[in-house]
Amino acid sequence: MSKATTAPPESAVELAQWLKDTDEVTIAAELDHLDVEPRTEIFRQLSPDRAADIFDYLEPAIQAQMLTAMDSGEAFALFEELEPDDQARLLEEFEPGQVATFLNILSPEDRTATALLLDYPAESAGRIMSPNFLALRADMTVAEALSLVRSEGEDVETIYFLPIVDEAGHLLGSIELESLVMAEMSDRVRDLEYLKSDSFSVRDDQEEVARYIQSADSIAVSVVEDDDTLVGIVTVDDAMDIIQREETEDIARASAVAPLGKPYFAVTSLQLVRSRIVWLSMLAIAATLTVNVLTAFEATLEQVVTLALFIPLLIGIGGNTGAQSATTIVRALAVDDVRTSDLVRVGLRESGVGLLLGGSLAIAAYFIVYFIFDQDIALVVSLTLVAICTLAALVGSLMPLIARMINVDPAVISAPFVTTIVDASGLIVYFMIATAVMGL
Amino acid sequence: MSKATTAPPESAVELAQWLKDTDEVTIAAELDHLDVEPRTEIFRQLSPDRAADIFDYLEPAIQAQMLTAMDSGEAFALFEELEPDDQARLLEEFEPGQVATFLNILSPEDRTATALLLDYPAESAGRIMSPNFLALRADMTVAEALSLVRSEGEDVETIYFLPIVDEAGHLLGSIELESLVMAEMSDRVRDLEYLKSDSFSVRDDQEEVARYIQSADSIAVSVVEDDDTLVGIVTVDDAMDIIQREETEDIARASAVAPLGKPYFAVTSLQLVRSRIVWLSMLAIAATLTVNVLTAFEATLEQVVTLALFIPLLIGIGGNTGAQSATTIVRALAVDDVRTSDLVRVGLRESGVGLLLGGSLAIAAYFIVYFIFDQDIALVVSLTLVAICTLAALVGSLMPLIARMINVDPAVISAPFVTTIVDASGLIVYFMIATAVMGL
Repeated sequence: MSKATTAPPESAVELAQWLKDTDEVTIAAELDHLDVEPRTEIFRQLSPDRAADIFDYLEPAIQAQMLTAMDSGEAFALFEELEPDDQARLLEEFEPGQVATFLNILSPEDRTATALLLDYPAESAGRIMSPNFLALRADMTVAEALSLVRSEGEDVETIYFLPIVDEAGHLLGSIELESLVMAEMSDRVRDLEYLKSDSFSVRDDQEEVARYIQSADSIAVSVVEDDDTLVGIVTVDDAMDIIQREETEDIARASAVAPLGKPYFAVTSLQLVRSRIVWLSMLAIAATLTVNVLTAFEATLEQVVTLALFIPLLIGIGGNTGAQSATTIVRALAVDDVRTSDLVRVGLRESGVGLLLGGSLAIAAYFIVYFIFDQDIALVVSLTLVAICTLAALVGSLMPLIARMINVDPAVISAPFVTTIVDASGLIVYFMIATAVMGL
Repeated sequence: MSKATTAPPESAVELAQWLKDTDEVTIAAELDHLDVEPRTEIFRQLSPDRAADIFDYLEPAIQAQMLTAMDSGEAFALFEELEPDDQARLLEEFEPGQVATFLNILSPEDRTATALLLDYPAESAGRIMSPNFLALRADMTVAEALSLVRSEGEDVETIYFLPIVDEAGHLLGSIELESLVMAEMSDRVRDLEYLKSDSFSVRDDQEEVARYIQSADSIAVSVVEDDDTLVGIVTVDDAMDIIQREETEDIARASAVAPLGKPYFAVTSLQLVRSRIVWLSMLAIAATLTVNVLTAFEATLEQVVTLALFIPLLIGIGGNTGAQSATTIVRALAVDDVRTSDLVRVGLRESGVGLLLGGSLAIAAYFIVYFIFDQDIALVVSLTLVAICTLAALVGSLMPLIARMINVDPAVISAPFVTTIVDASGLIVYFMIATAVMGL
């Protein structure tokens, strides 16, 4: 069976059949994609149990939209069914007043669990961990551990990953259910081969935790307070969501857009404008530098207007070369292929690559421009291509590394940012070469 | 414990201690990052067991590099220890001759398993599935199933995800170990609540499978041949790797770079040049359009050289606006927030956003240019900003959707591509507005 995405049918009869035949993940994906009204209407046709399951799979921003559109009884019932970590993520979408209302409907115990998560800083491991885990004691036998799993497994996030604690609740390590199932019933947990190192602090960065889970192929990791008290676990499915969210943010930043943090149609047009105007204005201000450079060379331009014809071509190619280098290095930094200690190595490599790219384009450009215009212009354009591509590759590759060094997210060294810088410096190079070659 | 990345120490004594104290995932990450020689040297200091475990965590391109550098005895021993799906992924890095050599050292059984995967097309589910799974029969009791898990669990990829088959090996569904552990020993597997729909065809796209695992929070999914014969499973850790690889590819394409498919330092400078020159040349050819446009307006330029001063600024802002829209829509398509059926809705929304962005910049630009230059130029620049931003946002948003419609990967509608198109059309708009306003 292939999971082709097909929109829910329009007719009431077909819709009822579709809702019966389609799995919950697919229904949730389709609902995510609809506008508030048709979404709520379809959602009302689901049985309460199925509605709760599907609600669980919706994007937090969509969940928040729906709860706001429902009457409070319906909304509270759906909210109560969520896990504490999912409640915390959903509450991030609300205004403070709404947060209090929703927290107040929870039982004191559940409220404490969810409020605890909200106390940790945004983007921290504490904020997204699940406080519903099953911890084993090191002196338990395997039989005791398995019976604990059977009696309490229903209420926890996962039974595949089991932290091991001492009497005071301090973390000793963790074990997977697999090891318990494969062991002898009379073995003690402490005698099994368990992992001692798989834990993170509540204050560690979410992305760091998620990338560790990915590279270690783990089911989950433990999260502890400063005194090593176990307070939660982060599971692999949370890790995947974190990575996707971080990637979406990085991609947005790479094109000078502030991350939306929500599905495209869940934000208003004005929010789209807001997410772009700041960077766009800053880039526009930086781009006024090109006006200054050209004003400085206005006399040269008046002498040889032909020089103006190649401005967009040359700075365009420079910008593209810089963007290629910048994006390659930003990504290599994100997946830890490249580090700040590689600065010199990367700079040499990329300027070499830029030189080769510029050189190849220059040879082609020389003959074409020579044929259509004249030898002087051909020489100026070719030499500028070599210089501009080398410069662009160097600037594009070093800027993300320098950003990381001064603790700025390298993803903000966006292609537009590099392009804008290369534009102004490329123009200076162009006119300097032109004045030299043409003797202006 | 935080997993801060620290390079392996230089001194032999400290290095030996570091190798003892550091977990395998971290050591692998550090090795991935070294050059071939120091990497192989450090690797040789590991005990054979630990070496094999760490080898498993290395990037396929790095594994291939190392095997090539080792003598064949060492190389074969490491290769043999890998799972069939990891072997298949590693062999993709080799030349056909090498592939045959490595396949030949395997036992006939293992060779069949690995060769089977290589027979499926690249990027398909069949290529990355694990053929080592544990299937249950529907008529087994829970006790029988658990005893099968205990006796054969060591040899399979995971025991948490258990496909269920009939006598002929046709897939009926799947169950998680959790359900078995929580059930009564005398229950029959077929009477437990098992999932009937979690399966994909061997020919389905890897990314589709991975995104499903992510949205369904699954541990794994089954993979079947056309007649529903179960042939493998894809696990969540494979899904994470696939998504990361696909994201890296998309990000590369978004800046007009052919995906490398390997860590940055695992490719040569010439390979970097090759990955960029094709797109860069195509963009350069497209950019010659700007030379044509400017040549057509050369007389106008000669009359008012001041017009040339604003060319980089205006096309720069247009390019950035287009890149913002394009990147937003490419990402929204990738995560299924936007679909081709939303074409009109997206086009209207983005041109509105572009109009607002251009309008805001135009107001600021009018006063600044009026103050420094004159009213005519101020009017031309402002009107051009409005037009160019609206056009750029529209083109940038629609091109990825149109690409998807004609079955081209929307990620190739890169920011540089949009920028280059906007450059040429923006210049035409600029000179048309200039001739109209200034009566040229």
